[in-house]
Amino acid sequence: MLKGRNLIDPMDFSTEELEEVFNLAEKIIENPDKYSKIGEGKLLATLFFEPSTRTRFSFEAAMLRLGGKVLGFSDANSSSASKGESVADTIRVVGGYADVVAMRHPKEGAAKVASMYSEVPVINAGDGGHQHPTQTLTDLLTIRRKKGEFSNHTIGLCGDLKFGRTVHSLVKALSRYKNNKFVLISPEELKIPDYIKKEVLIKNNIEFVEVDRLEDVVDKLDILYMTRVQKERFFNEEDYLRLKDSYVLNEEKMKLAKKDMIILHPLPRVNEIAAEVDNDPRACYFQQTKYGMYARMALIAKLLGVCE
Amino acid sequence: MLKGRNLIDPMDFSTEELEEVFNLAEKIIENPDKYSKIGEGKLLATLFFEPSTRTRFSFEAAMLRLGGKVLGFSDANSSSASKGESVADTIRVVGGYADVVAMRHPKEGAAKVASMYSEVPVINAGDGGHQHPTQTLTDLLTIRRKKGEFSNHTIGLCGDLKFGRTVHSLVKALSRYKNNKFVLISPEELKIPDYIKKEVLIKNNIEFVEVDRLEDVVDKLDILYMTRVQKERFFNEEDYLRLKDSYVLNEEKMKLAKKDMIILHPLPRVNEIAAEVDNDPRACYFQQTKYGMYARMALIAKLLGVCE
Amino acid sequence: MLKGRNLIDPMDFSTEELEEVFNLAEKIIENPDKYSKIGEGKLLATLFFEPSTRTRFSFEAAMLRLGGKVLGFSDANSSSASKGESVADTIRVVGGYADVVAMRHPKEGAAKVASMYSEVPVINAGDGGHQHPTQTLTDLLTIRRKKGEFSNHTIGLCGDLKFGRTVHSLVKALSRYKNNKFVLISPEELKIPDYIKKEVLIKNNIEFVEVDRLEDVVDKLDILYMTRVQKERFFNEEDYLRLKDSYVLNEEKMKLAKKDMIILHPLPRVNEIAAEVDNDPRACYFQQTKYGMYARMALIAKLLGVCE
Repeated sequence: MLKGRNLIDPMDFSTEELEEVFNLAEKIIENPDKYSKIGEGKLLATLFFEPSTRTRFSFEAAMLRLGGKVLGFSDANSSSASKGESVADTIRVVGGYADVVAMRHPKEGAAKVASMYSEVPVINAGDGGHQHPTQTLTDLLTIRRKKGEFSNHTIGLCGDLKFGRTVHSLVKALSRYKNNKFVLISPEELKIPDYIKKEVLIKNNIEFVEVDRLEDVVDKLDILYMTRVQKERFFNEEDYLRLKDSYVLNEEKMKLAKKDMIILHPLPRVNEIAAEVDNDPRACYFQQTKYGMYARMALIAKLLGVCE
Repeated sequence: MLKGRNLIDPMDFSTEELEEVFNLAEKIIENPDKYSKIGEGKLLATLFFEPSTRTRFSFEAAMLRLGGKVLGFSDANSSSASKGESVADTIRVVGGYADVVAMRHPKEGAAKVASMYSEVPVINAGDGGHQHPTQTLTDLLTIRRKKGEFSNHTIGLCGDLKFGRTVHSLVKALSRYKNNKFVLISPEELKIPDYIKKEVLIKNNIEFVEVDRLEDVVDKLDILYMTRVQKERFFNEEDYLRLKDSYVLNEEKMKLAKKDMIILHPLPRVNEIAAEVDNDPRACYFQQTKYGMYARMALIAKLLGVCE
Repeated sequence: MLKGRNLIDPMDFSTEELEEVFNLAEKIIENPDKYSKIGEGKLLATLFFEPSTRTRFSFEAAMLRLGGKVLGFSDANSSSASKGESVADTIRVVGGYADVVAMRHPKEGAAKVASMYSEVPVINAGDGGHQHPTQTLTDLLTIRRKKGEFSNHTIGLCGDLKFGRTVHSLVKALSRYKNNKFVLISPEELKIPDYIKKEVLIKNNIEFVEVDRLEDVVDKLDILYMTRVQKERFFNEEDYLRLKDSYVLNEEKMKLAKKDMIILHPLPRVNEIAAEVDNDPRACYFQQTKYGMYARMALIAKLLGVCE
């Protein structure tokens, strides 16, 4: 039973609970009209203490497409936070107005604090560089729709693996399934943190390799998860110039890839995927954002308990 | 009949008209589902020329929970005001789109001007330091829910009584009922203005005392209305240091209070009520914000005339 | 059939297609309740990369009054654009959430680009100084409501005819109808661009005169379209002082005008129409903004194909 629960950390839900969400998401995808009124009379509050249009839109579209309604703010300036109010107070007030809350906050742990004081379910819509669990739901639902299962994949993670919270969450999430292998593609400066390697990969006996050039490994991958590499992250200009093209996915690299590899990206994309790739049938990142809406529809419906 | 009326000043409504609003509010509290569609097809415009998330949320939640819809802006930067448009013109345009308008403006009298040009009801959601009538509705509904009547109370008002518009309005509103006594608790610099004393309290033969320490009088009170005391308001540091703790409500002071005293606060609260008081059953300030939503639901329904 | 189409340039629709939109708009005006649910289950995204409250409100009110729902942002700061995302990517994402998009952007051509990548209809809600086609729909619907036809009028266009995109669009639009004459009233510095004269007026054999004082010609006009003249646009102070009063419509000038002349203005108005004119029955500019909402309701319904 997910009714009344919070979603703060991507690992808050068991694999069975995730299945429950994804099963509902797929039913909604197949027959959206059937679910277009189950949220009637329910109110979602979107508390975005820092702007993130895409995520906010996805939540709001999800609620509206369930027949529910939405109120919210899109940056902290127009919130009572600017008058010095604590997150605990804000959520107690907003929880009196709304039936479910999606909260984005620049501070790690803010959503967790909110959930402790809230009388309604709280969904973490991103807390600093920490967690962003609905992005993980989005990523997983896309993999399930495109690959049919969460096991037996070789997953390439490319770009900034050090700071990319969505990457960390995806590694943790997929480590709960069988027979997955990870190919970690990043410059030295942006390698995945040690604790992920030790406490997630090695601990669970999961095979992985670390490389620094996408072109060397792209032919092995079933799933390629791209992220942006920001110039500022590099220690020196020389490294940046030598490596930057390795983290740009283009037609040339796509020629090396499997015919059924899928490309994911949390978006927004800047130039790490060339526009020429957009029409490749393996490019799934725009569809992925749409699945994000469906994942959130299913999640909200489950937390509200308006759907069995 | 409140249909088509404006609410600009907390005293715009007679006590009978207030009763009408509160009677409806209580019916909604008891059976919200029955009222969840009476606003269908109606549109509220929230024109917030200065940000006030809490108030805006309360209005928007109220309209949405009546089955209505909302459009608005949350600060002047994203409004036509930045192009030099007058309030009169703005309201004539918006009144063409919406069925009722809630307006917050930094200038005193702005909502009054708007109401003179509007073809639809205008609700003052705060005009500078002047009026904030739906906060008064909120305060009164909370007193009615918790105390059953508006008469026969000893009401303590604590903190900044000079600039606190909600305090002034509450004094005026409760002065219309019988046998109330006021205990005005503030530092010298922040005493209630003379005109309130002369034209409201003395004129109506209402008993009141002025004191500067909460702990000296808290045991006498049926209702304690807390507000924030800002350091900048004090004339000198010495006074501030000597008195600041007197205006902080904590467990210790609550031990002196009556068992059925209720604590109100217009929120946001910073530190004038210690967190340790939040779980005291006499702490009503979070419930109060929820009653604020119900008060606004009743008000909007009455002004729209969608409910008898 | 307008279903699935975009509206980027005011001339995108044939006169027959415009008729189709206006016929529906008039039906909605006469019986709004009949159309208050045809948009149920549909979602409008309002992407305002620069603020324009009036236009955004008009779109949102239109969608909400059709029974649809709305999500959006009101300035670029709270959008992913600030993370460097392209318009093409933004629209591909938002097109996955919404059924129709209204987009305002400071860059000319932005809406056109968006429409090329969007899977749902895109409406240009203003792209820089370029196009603003729903304002033209608004202007035309007002003329049709007030004058019954688009032919046989003497139309005065007054003020800044050089930079006023709504003026250019209106000239083009009315040039498709028979027997119209234009009186172009502006200071030398702000005369209508040559290409409009050559490629629209002269090419279509349309009669026009250029004058620099409103009072000299106001008696000839059936329609007077006012726009603002900004001091900064003048080459020298002397000209400005000599001419500025010529571009202010007041009671005195209205005494010279025909009894059935109508005054239009795209709003916001600053002081180019004196407040004393507002109650003149010939002043149609506030009604015009309301017609703007109805025009957008009809447009959205047609593009969504929810109405035959």
